[in-house]
Amino acid sequence: MSQSSSDIVTAGLLVIGDEILSGRTKDKNIGFIAEYLTAIGIDLKEVRVVADEEAEIVAALNALRSRYTYVFTTGGIGPTHDDITADSVAKAFGVPIDIDPRVVAIFKERAPHLELNEARLRMARIPAGADLVENSVSNAPGFMIGNVIVMAGVPAIMQAMIDSVSGRLRTGRKMLSETVLANAREGDIGGPLGEIAKAHPDAMIGSYPFFDGKGPNTNIVVRSREPQTLAAAKAAVEAMLVKVNGAR
Amino acid sequence: MSQSSSDIVTAGLLVIGDEILSGRTKDKNIGFIAEYLTAIGIDLKEVRVVADEEAEIVAALNALRSRYTYVFTTGGIGPTHDDITADSVAKAFGVPIDIDPRVVAIFKERAPHLELNEARLRMARIPAGADLVENSVSNAPGFMIGNVIVMAGVPAIMQAMIDSVSGRLRTGRKMLSETVLANAREGDIGGPLGEIAKAHPDAMIGSYPFFDGKGPNTNIVVRSREPQTLAAAKAAVEAMLVKVNGAR
Repeated sequence: MSQSSSDIVTAGLLVIGDEILSGRTKDKNIGFIAEYLTAIGIDLKEVRVVADEEAEIVAALNALRSRYTYVFTTGGIGPTHDDITADSVAKAFGVPIDIDPRVVAIFKERAPHLELNEARLRMARIPAGADLVENSVSNAPGFMIGNVIVMAGVPAIMQAMIDSVSGRLRTGRKMLSETVLANAREGDIGGPLGEIAKAHPDAMIGSYPFFDGKGPNTNIVVRSREPQTLAAAKAAVEAMLVKVNGAR
Repeated sequence: MSQSSSDIVTAGLLVIGDEILSGRTKDKNIGFIAEYLTAIGIDLKEVRVVADEEAEIVAALNALRSRYTYVFTTGGIGPTHDDITADSVAKAFGVPIDIDPRVVAIFKERAPHLELNEARLRMARIPAGADLVENSVSNAPGFMIGNVIVMAGVPAIMQAMIDSVSGRLRTGRKMLSETVLANAREGDIGGPLGEIAKAHPDAMIGSYPFFDGKGPNTNIVVRSREPQTLAAAKAAVEAMLVKVNGAR
């Protein structure tokens, strides 16, 4: 059974930061966001990582926001000179950006002891027309403008922000997934697995090799939005494995 | 002192795999490759993660290979139906692809006990004109065609492949880096740090907040290919921190 396109909500992710590209910081957000979106019924279709350079951010953002239902960004919304995400997003949308009195009010209420200096006011710069994404961890909010959700790069703050914003998002039918441990080398099951993939075109079947304690092994992951499609493909995989493994 | 452009060698990275986008597998290759390339004098400028879909792979590969000195890919070169990277690379380059006798010879020599079935022969499909990237961990090689290096997705195999190929690559002057622990909140140093960044335009200065045991703290990372430029910017950051922290 094919799925109607209205069931499907897609997303792109734009990770912004020199420190990811230099390897100094190991990204922890891509995996978290991928798993989070899958769980709520949004298909992550593409990720890009770019440097803290306005032209790069604008080009990537415009490419992604025209293709997917939503675009999430991480990084570059702090108080220092290298935090240029908010200004870059405003430029991509062609809207003005200025210090937002809503953010200033949050700072005054939640952190009256911290000086509202130029650096902190930089975190209050929000593109015109954006909704704030407040969160429990950081006083400085993220924001949502059009289909773009702008979040912090620090994992704990990003995670609070995505929790805060997810209720506002349209979600599709959830992708269901089953993993079958093959107890076989990929090279021994690739042929029959390909036949199963052809016979079950509405299921997505992935094969993921890994080394277990004894040698090469394989996880087979079957995915579909339809429980019956999923069950049929999984059963076919299991029957094939019984046959292949029994023959050895 | 500005750096001549011939000192700079750039790279893009294309991570290929549904399992990364679904969150089932947490990528471990981006951080490794980023750090590896930085260490040998290649600047990683952009990363993309795309699904196991030919059109997506071809489009991303063509975008990246025209922009950067090298493009590295990970994933999708195994023996199963969802491994479509080699064919997609051949399509992007507009060259034929077929079973490569060099790979068949490797299989026969290194794994004479394994049946050379249709699935394993799939791993021998190499685009015309490519050089093999043999490695110690896997019998199935990666390959290099033009400026594109195609590697496995399994981290241990990818790491063996990048070690195997790196000696063939042109490298630039290494980016030098120093990290200064600020012992200050980002919001308290953003102003003076921005002044330092303006006064040292040839150094790259990044500010990375994190939570230590006591609360918000900040790492300041200064980068340059010129030792003197690096030292001057680092000294300015340290002097600023003495002033800011002493005033509290």
